[in-house]
Parts: sequence; structure tokens; C-alpha cells
Amino acid sequence: MAHAVVEWTDNLAAEGFAVKPLLSLIAAAMRDADGVFPPGGIRARGIRLEDYVIADDSGQDAFVNITIRMGAGRSAEFKAAFFGGLFAEVKAHLEPVFERRYLALSMYVDEADEAGSFKHNNIHTRFRKAG
Amino acid sequence: MAHAVVEWTDNLAAEGFAVKPLLSLIAAAMRDADGVFPPGGIRARGIRLEDYVIADDSGQDAFVNITIRMGAGRSAEFKAAFFGGLFAEVKAHLEPVFERRYLALSMYVDEADEAGSFKHNNIHTRFRKAG
Amino acid sequence: MAHAVVEWTDNLAAEGFAVKPLLSLIAAAMRDADGVFPPGGIRARGIRLEDYVIADDSGQDAFVNITIRMGAGRSAEFKAAFFGGLFAEVKAHLEPVFERRYLALSMYVDEADEAGSFKHNNIHTRFRKAG
Repeated sequence: MAHAVVEWTDNLAAEGFAVKPLLSLIAAAMRDADGVFPPGGIRARGIRLEDYVIADDSGQDAFVNITIRMGAGRSAEFKAAFFGGLFAEVKAHLEPVFERRYLALSMYVDEADEAGSFKHNNIHTRFRKAG
Repeated sequence: MAHAVVEWTDNLAAEGFAVKPLLSLIAAAMRDADGVFPPGGIRARGIRLEDYVIADDSGQDAFVNITIRMGAGRSAEFKAAFFGGLFAEVKAHLEPVFERRYLALSMYVDEADEAGSFKHNNIHTRFRKAG
Repeated sequence: MAHAVVEWTDNLAAEGFAVKPLLSLIAAAMRDADGVFPPGGIRARGIRLEDYVIADDSGQDAFVNITIRMGAGRSAEFKAAFFGGLFAEVKAHLEPVFERRYLALSMYVDEADEAGSFKHNNIHTRFRKAG
């Protein structure tokens, strides 16, 4: 499984930023990772932030923060390559925003402890039927 | 203390899903755990998700994701039994939804590091008065 | 960098609570920490909660929960002093609310794993220009 949460400050709406294409980009990258992330376990969501204070609160700044949580067990090599590549894609996607304003982009990757993880998911059956 | 966050995709509203009964179920299970979770420290909240991409973004899928954070110190045996039981209750609660649509249900349990935890809570006094 | 998320139950709005001054207090404390938190990396946001169950769900209770995430590497001494001081400030800020109602205040401090952290931030350039 792989969860992604994309928080974004709503002053980005004026820049033409929309969260849905960014969620699609993240989910597509995960689907394209050679089966490392079973498609039925991919869940990306956006959180629109209306109240925030950034840096010196001058009102010039914005941020996008991505938090990813997945099960343990992927190799350090895979993680460095995959998430490095994903972050480069996200950065490129946001390049037009970086050109126009002050923006902090961040991404954090965490692993869920297996003993504390509980799952029940019938989306997988849709892919098995289709497969 | 015990925190629970229940994220849910808003396409579940059409299925008759409401988050409040699920929050009540979680809080009640915690209250019923023989004093392991002091009632004054139980805090469950729902986050309604409006923007999300699931699996292959076919629009057929939904998810409910529960994140629990509590103080360290409960035994591994207690945690396996309690959270296994809680997850079974949540699954049963969502059975009508599972029968009608593709749904990913997940629950993750984390412990807060004591050195990084700060608390001030006068709800406990209400229970001491009542006790 | 330093992220802060302030969740608050919307029954506090009737008490005159507003999240923005609390976000400003947190960001200011970080800016005043002798350069330990570069100003361009400070991001505080509020999450207004509309659905929640607290304690025995009597409807008398409210909560404010602060989650802080920063990079690793600050000393244990600094962290105990800084976050202890910050929490005391937050408590004092909320004193009028504690006097009038049952409120659970909590703050958790986490460190991000360097290997799983990715950043691109041109807010820093604004401070370098100004410096």
C-alpha cells in the first residue's frame, strides 16, 4: 500500500495551481513502479489549507507539503531512486509556480510499522478480475 | 491519551456513510478497555476528503483510513488484542459499504515519543469529580 | 525546516478562539530561536475540525492538538528547552479558554528522517536577499 497526502496553501489557487493533477501525477508514478506498489493500495489525497503562517508572515509565501506512508520492506536503493525521481517530477510540475512566486515544496517518506498496520481492501479484487 | 484521525473520501456520503458513528465506535472501544485509555484523553476526529486519486483513478473506489496515536508503554499483547478487536469492529461497521462498492480500509497505530510529548488537560478533572 | 499543524475543534470558535494568532505565536517562537529554524522553512497551518468525539462525548469538551515536524540534528537540550518554553507560551495563550471550559491541549514533536526528506524552497532566497 502507499498513501500520499498533499497539503497546499490556498493562495496557490490564484496561480492556477490545482491539486488534482498533482495527485494524479503521484498515483501514476506509483502505478508505473514495476509492481512495487499494487494499484489497489494507492491512495492520494489533497488537503486545502486556509489558515497558515509561513516564514515571517509577509503574505508572499506559499507551500506544498507531501507526506507519503507505505509499508516497510522496499530496499534503500529502490526508495532513493523512486522517490528522488518522483520529487523531480513534482518539482518540474510546479516549475511555473516557482517562477512566479516564493514557494516551499517538501516531501517526506515514512514507513508504517507492520505490527501496527491493519487492512481490509476489496479494490485489489477489481484488479485481479481485470488481470 | 489516545488520538484517532479518520480520513474518509466524500464519495462515501452517497452510500449513507457518516463519520460520526465511526468516531463514536472508536471512542467507546477505548473507554471500554479497562482503564488503559483514561477517558479524558480520548480524542477522535474525522477529516472529509474532497480531492483524491485512488488506484487507477477509475472513480469506482473509496477509502477510510484511521490513524491512531497514543503514548508508549502499553504491552505488545494488549496492543495486538485491542487493536485487532477494534479493527474487526470497524470492519463489521463498514460491511454494508464493502458489499456495495470497492473500498480500502486501513488503520495504523503509532506511539508518541515521551520526550516529545507535552500535555495540559482539564477534562481529566471532570472525570475525577464524577468518580 | 519546521512544520507545525494545529488541529482545533470548532466548538472553540464560540469561546473567541481563533487559530491564526496561535499559528503566529508558534512561527514567532521559531523565528526567535537564534537561527536554529531558518525563517524560510517555517510553516504553520491550522486544521478546523467539524466532526469529533471527545472523552465520553458529553459535548462539554474541546481540544487543540499541535504536531511539529522538523529535521533531525537539534540537541536534546535545545529541544527540551525550546519546546518546553513554546508549550508554556501556548498554554498561557489558551489560559482564558481553560478558565471557561474543558479543554485538552497537546503537542507532539517529531523528527523527519533525512533519507526520506526532499526539499525545494525559494523562500530562503528572499531572506538571503534581505540579509
